[in-house]
Amino acid sequence: MGDDLESGRDFRPKFDANGLITAVCTDAESGDVLMVAHMTAEALTQSLASGKATFWSRSRKSLWVKGETSGNYLHIVEARVDCDQDALWLKCRPEGPACHTGAQSCFYRIVEDGALRPVSSQP
Amino acid sequence: MGDDLESGRDFRPKFDANGLITAVCTDAESGDVLMVAHMTAEALTQSLASGKATFWSRSRKSLWVKGETSGNYLHIVEARVDCDQDALWLKCRPEGPACHTGAQSCFYRIVEDGALRPVSSQP
Repeated sequence: MGDDLESGRDFRPKFDANGLITAVCTDAESGDVLMVAHMTAEALTQSLASGKATFWSRSRKSLWVKGETSGNYLHIVEARVDCDQDALWLKCRPEGPACHTGAQSCFYRIVEDGALRPVSSQP
Repeated sequence: MGDDLESGRDFRPKFDANGLITAVCTDAESGDVLMVAHMTAEALTQSLASGKATFWSRSRKSLWVKGETSGNYLHIVEARVDCDQDALWLKCRPEGPACHTGAQSCFYRIVEDGALRPVSSQP
């Protein structure tokens, strides 16, 4: 069973046609989802080695150490993979706001009756 | 500012080239990430209208009401969208295990030293 994708112990992340895997970053303490981004194999290897969440910027087409310019790193506390190994869950210790807007989380708006309402605790 | 994608109140979900948006489902109570799946515009509309998480099955190429066959629905407690509106966070009340393997969450394995270790509280 060691080589079974779903029940096995082999880490075989499944990258999509663009060579990317989705990574969900949560606050290890509050459990809040902070951001969702994508990793190439290189970004994933670097993330696990450095302990700092590192993504692939689809717009800039380059490796992107989250916090590299802002100082707002996401320190990985625990990494998990899902059943079919095409998504990652990274429990993180955020150093500062995770969102480029300055919000703690990128998810600062609630969808309600077809419109958006800011979360009260966010700017 | 009402029409600004990042600060506005207009819900304008951004679907990718395949017409999909990523949805992260968490347990509204524990905060655990339960699953990551994808929605078409139709799946999203139906999810918000019915309160039951509904996805697009990329393998079956059809709309998929999560729990339709298993009874393990994900009842949406709160829906959020991220800064650039290309990802959704659904806080859910799970009716039964979220994973088809029978695990509460699809993320039942921790990545450690290049291999996978089952989470102790999961099968």
